Amino acid sequence: MPVGLGPLPVLHPVPGFRLGIASAGIKRVGRKDVVVMEAAEGSTIAGVFTQNAFCAAPVTLCRQRMGSTPRYLLVNTGNANAGTGKPGMVAAERTCEALAELVGVKSEQILPFSTGVIGELLPADKIIPVLPAALENLSEDNWAVAAEGIMTTDTQPKGCSRQIQIAGQTVTITGTSKGAGMIRPNMATMLGYVATDAPVAQPVLQALLREAADLSFNRITIDGDTSTNDSCMLVATGQAAIAPIDSTEAAGYAELAAAIKEVLLVLAQAIVRDGEGATKFVTVQVNGGGNRNECLDVAYAVAHSPLIKTALFASDPNWGRILAAVGYAGVPNLDVEKIDVYLDDVCITRQGGRAPEYVEEQGARVMAQEEITIRIELGRGACSETLWTTDLSHEYVRINAEYRT
Amino acid sequence: MPVGLGPLPVLHPVPGFRLGIASAGIKRVGRKDVVVMEAAEGSTIAGVFTQNAFCAAPVTLCRQRMGSTPRYLLVNTGNANAGTGKPGMVAAERTCEALAELVGVKSEQILPFSTGVIGELLPADKIIPVLPAALENLSEDNWAVAAEGIMTTDTQPKGCSRQIQIAGQTVTITGTSKGAGMIRPNMATMLGYVATDAPVAQPVLQALLREAADLSFNRITIDGDTSTNDSCMLVATGQAAIAPIDSTEAAGYAELAAAIKEVLLVLAQAIVRDGEGATKFVTVQVNGGGNRNECLDVAYAVAHSPLIKTALFASDPNWGRILAAVGYAGVPNLDVEKIDVYLDDVCITRQGGRAPEYVEEQGARVMAQEEITIRIELGRGACSETLWTTDLSHEYVRINAEYRT
Repeated sequence: MPVGLGPLPVLHPVPGFRLGIASAGIKRVGRKDVVVMEAAEGSTIAGVFTQNAFCAAPVTLCRQRMGSTPRYLLVNTGNANAGTGKPGMVAAERTCEALAELVGVKSEQILPFSTGVIGELLPADKIIPVLPAALENLSEDNWAVAAEGIMTTDTQPKGCSRQIQIAGQTVTITGTSKGAGMIRPNMATMLGYVATDAPVAQPVLQALLREAADLSFNRITIDGDTSTNDSCMLVATGQAAIAPIDSTEAAGYAELAAAIKEVLLVLAQAIVRDGEGATKFVTVQVNGGGNRNECLDVAYAVAHSPLIKTALFASDPNWGRILAAVGYAGVPNLDVEKIDVYLDDVCITRQGGRAPEYVEEQGARVMAQEEITIRIELGRGACSETLWTTDLSHEYVRINAEYRT
Repeated sequence: MPVGLGPLPVLHPVPGFRLGIASAGIKRVGRKDVVVMEAAEGSTIAGVFTQNAFCAAPVTLCRQRMGSTPRYLLVNTGNANAGTGKPGMVAAERTCEALAELVGVKSEQILPFSTGVIGELLPADKIIPVLPAALENLSEDNWAVAAEGIMTTDTQPKGCSRQIQIAGQTVTITGTSKGAGMIRPNMATMLGYVATDAPVAQPVLQALLREAADLSFNRITIDGDTSTNDSCMLVATGQAAIAPIDSTEAAGYAELAAAIKEVLLVLAQAIVRDGEGATKFVTVQVNGGGNRNECLDVAYAVAHSPLIKTALFASDPNWGRILAAVGYAGVPNLDVEKIDVYLDDVCITRQGGRAPEYVEEQGARVMAQEEITIRIELGRGACSETLWTTDLSHEYVRINAEYRT
């Protein structure tokens, strides 16, 4: 059961961005597992991809092709096409060539994305025959169906949509994401697709995506496992009737950037809320660090500790395990007597020891909630970092002992 | 059920080293939870301790006192006396003072050790009254009872004993260890005590312990959580009738060092075999690294991945998850096309992709075993590192959701 993740909200269509879904039966017959996304001519596209050295064939192709003018995104689930060597590259290229021929663009203008089982060759011969059906299905109104089409172990489709006013014109930002396990994105996420009709120059769009991903997809972790296929794409179709945004000083940039960051954050948090076996949505906030890295080191140590994660699952305010994780996070010359730890607003540890006024019932009350903030004050400087994560439950073990990633 | 851990072997007494057990009812009434160890006058003692910044009060005291000539080790379970601030230090000092008075040594000659729940004050008033009983119980033959006395979530007592010949004389090395969770020792382990009757100068003994711990206790991980209380002590009573070992060139040093390393390795591996919820004993061997650090980074990434650990639990030869972990381990400029991965002798991945000759049944056969070696060949250099770890089972979650560390 996802934590605090309601039904899919209204996802406004983005003028100039169409989505089409088809069923290739890659892992299961009848499953909608192929999504084609089309960005109108003149769109700009930005992307960030996994830093995993074993990146999948489609990620390699995407990286090569970001320099061209991509027009189509071809997504499949059920197969990650990772760890598949040369044959995997050939299979990915074949699907792109087939789509390019059908729509009359160059193969380099197709960006492929795969997610699912690692180490099995992409069944191009299943995907190619259903591409005409996906194209026939293309519509600006298909975000909700596409959100379902990209799911793997997700229990719910994920999406977010915002409309803002720039120079009196309505500008739309809509996105979808997927992922529930093998989640510790590094520069990107499992899969995320966001489109806007704002006209944004590609370098501006790319810088904005990198910044937004750093504050959202790159700040979530479920199991600390960085996927081989993480990709997040941001498309600007330019069909809103506003002046081109060609720099971060341009009119409308600030409003657009804020809205895009919000959409990415909601999408990233949705992945955590639907984390494999998650029963808690946990915010880990580290304040008072001397630099961002030490804040992140502490936050990840807490977010990845199996002992803290099982205590969260048990709703046990086991603050000793939090102190232990802070202590082994590797912060140089850490003065433990300056450290305070809070569960929501309850101070459980002051100056490195149990807070004198703390009584266990207060901690137990917070831990019983579905949404919990662990706040750690390091007392070393002015830097802060925030991560979002889940607990570790029996269900996580069951899912991952049974599912072949 | 521990993996491949039989009943406690014969633990030979070490002349000059006596152990006494008592019951203070720290966590449960009737439980043997206090152990006093006495090193005969003239013994040398070496120790290594946790690098966790939130180290426990007894660890702080031990560090301060290693410079003196310690004679007694005072161990309690049921309470870690960590995260307890000044009052924790006072409580630890009080127990030491009480023991010192009873045996007629200085308080600085007592080394305290605690393990159990973090964040609760050590109940000195329960421990002090039972010290006379522990002293009355002192005997060189008490290793097996002491091995039980230091257990927490351990399901079996752990011990190892070797006898070697040096210059025609029998020299004995006997040790015990405890720990099953919060195990990723850094410079030491949860608790380990090893004694020998060889006469070894303290600096030689300390260097030997550090080297041996690095190859044993510092190469095991269960959950990646470095404890606040890790301590490993090596005592040399000097009662064997051989020439003093005052340098690494001295006669007998090589044989003694080899035997001590073996004892530490057996004790460290025993902790993994009895890891919380463990159903597998897993050796992770990384060869062909450019340096030791990158071998360790890859080995720990594999050993800590919840996805690999759940696949091990499920006996699923899910090599894609292994590749993904190698890929995100942070090795700079990793050439994935040089990487081979083996499960025991079965090559599952060659040059970064599925080995052409590999069939799933071979991998499944290895994964069905209780003891498995994951071997990763990086093809970058001549360095190797080996770790030992466990799988991640439902039982791990149950134990840690229920137990208050």
